[in-house]
Amino acid sequence: MPEFDYIAWLRSRTPADPRVPVGPGDDCAVLAPSGRPLLVTTDLLTDGTDFILSEVGARAAGRKAMAVNLSDIAAMAGVPTAAVVAVALPAGGRSVGEEIYDGIRDVADEFGVAVVGGDTNSWAGALVVAVTLLGEATARGPVLRSGAKPGDWLFVTGPVGGSIRGRHLTPTPRVREALRLHNAVDLHAMIDISDGLAADLNHILEESCCGAVIDAAAVPVHADAVELAKATGKPPLAHALGDGEDFELVFTVSAADGERLLREPPVAGLVKIGECVAAGLWLNEGGGRRPLAPTGWVHEL
Amino acid sequence: MPEFDYIAWLRSRTPADPRVPVGPGDDCAVLAPSGRPLLVTTDLLTDGTDFILSEVGARAAGRKAMAVNLSDIAAMAGVPTAAVVAVALPAGGRSVGEEIYDGIRDVADEFGVAVVGGDTNSWAGALVVAVTLLGEATARGPVLRSGAKPGDWLFVTGPVGGSIRGRHLTPTPRVREALRLHNAVDLHAMIDISDGLAADLNHILEESCCGAVIDAAAVPVHADAVELAKATGKPPLAHALGDGEDFELVFTVSAADGERLLREPPVAGLVKIGECVAAGLWLNEGGGRRPLAPTGWVHEL
Repeated sequence: MPEFDYIAWLRSRTPADPRVPVGPGDDCAVLAPSGRPLLVTTDLLTDGTDFILSEVGARAAGRKAMAVNLSDIAAMAGVPTAAVVAVALPAGGRSVGEEIYDGIRDVADEFGVAVVGGDTNSWAGALVVAVTLLGEATARGPVLRSGAKPGDWLFVTGPVGGSIRGRHLTPTPRVREALRLHNAVDLHAMIDISDGLAADLNHILEESCCGAVIDAAAVPVHADAVELAKATGKPPLAHALGDGEDFELVFTVSAADGERLLREPPVAGLVKIGECVAAGLWLNEGGGRRPLAPTGWVHEL
Repeated sequence: MPEFDYIAWLRSRTPADPRVPVGPGDDCAVLAPSGRPLLVTTDLLTDGTDFILSEVGARAAGRKAMAVNLSDIAAMAGVPTAAVVAVALPAGGRSVGEEIYDGIRDVADEFGVAVVGGDTNSWAGALVVAVTLLGEATARGPVLRSGAKPGDWLFVTGPVGGSIRGRHLTPTPRVREALRLHNAVDLHAMIDISDGLAADLNHILEESCCGAVIDAAAVPVHADAVELAKATGKPPLAHALGDGEDFELVFTVSAADGERLLREPPVAGLVKIGECVAAGLWLNEGGGRRPLAPTGWVHEL
């Protein structure tokens, strides 16, 4: 396909980076070893599912593709380092390719990520963007989903719900926040909210073999959830618990570390939303505890 | 999208691997550092361009997706280590997802690659598979495209042309061959044949700022090129020079190392096809030298 040499173009625009001794002009990018555990994550976004290209434009699609991958590195409290980008462009999509890359670079530059290679294809289908992001664990190691314990306090890094009103396109991955938290306390388990607060918390619970109770009154409901609730007729809390793509972090720490975070928060926006228990996922509302589905739906008793 | 938890499924099928201290149940895979330079490559394949899903099946698509990435690691004489897989599945594509993964594992297992994570999406479009493969350079370092010098001898690892007759779906990435060659001689420059012998050699020449003369009579023309030529009416050599997706390696070495390779070939199938010169890409045929286009087309003088 002699259409658009994305690599040559990319190469012409990627400034020299000391971490990248060899540029993307070769079959592989070559990265200097760091001696730290390597983090690898990949996210593929499609037109019509993750964004509507005709409405938001390719640059926004590129930004989101990089941001959601950064959010996965943030969830492990890692330092993002380098990315490769694979795209399937709709026919005649040369400018689409350039705009995607500009969007990817917007976010990559903000977080110090070197875009070191990629693969561009033209095809008869709609736009697909797949970013694979590499990162490094800090000296404190990666934070997994599996370390939560009964008695842990449960925190979220910011308000959630209703991201579909527009925020889902321009998430701010909590990379810096995660690193500050990781430095300040012993993070037992962490995840980013992509599927929804309840669903992603449930991933932690499954990996950690424990449960959690969320305090309904404590959940920071985003203004977008309140607005969206007017249209859907659902309670704003249901959107806060069930909506996806907030890209805030949910994490657990010991009660002692939790108290320290409340006393001297290392990052803004932290909210304690509950505690871990032996088993189950529960919502504490009006003094009663009811089972909470990972979809965010509250079972009536 | 609560459709098919590819990660959970993948995890259930990936045997424990000592290089992977943390499984794909987390937001990122975590790989132990090796201290060697890291190689990263990504290739995205689409239904209708790289394979016809309805004709070849998803398992073949998965095999090809892994093989073409392995070929890029081979081109750097690297050791492949771990892969992540991102797919966009057509509606109702659960079995397609499983078959793709089986195909990926067929080839990954053969080359000792751990599949450590992925991202599965369903959408309204056709099948897209993006594999990102990591590898390590050996102690001799990665082989780049940029090291060819005038006077170098030019080799190819096997016969080329006509892969579209079927071979393009089941390439054998020359990973082991590249490592053996790298161990035996000083490889100046290397690339795998994905675009075509002339086109990929031309990438070496561009990166190395030199030229090359190919001996027409020396080019190992694959039987598929001969068969294909009957249908297209083009000379078999034109297919050998111009057809893509052979995934053999083209490389250059000093004349002394070239003689050593002919005397004691460390791998089967090696053919000397020409030599590097100061500039230009040329075909030596019937005693005369004519300019050769990277497309494989021979300019009449």
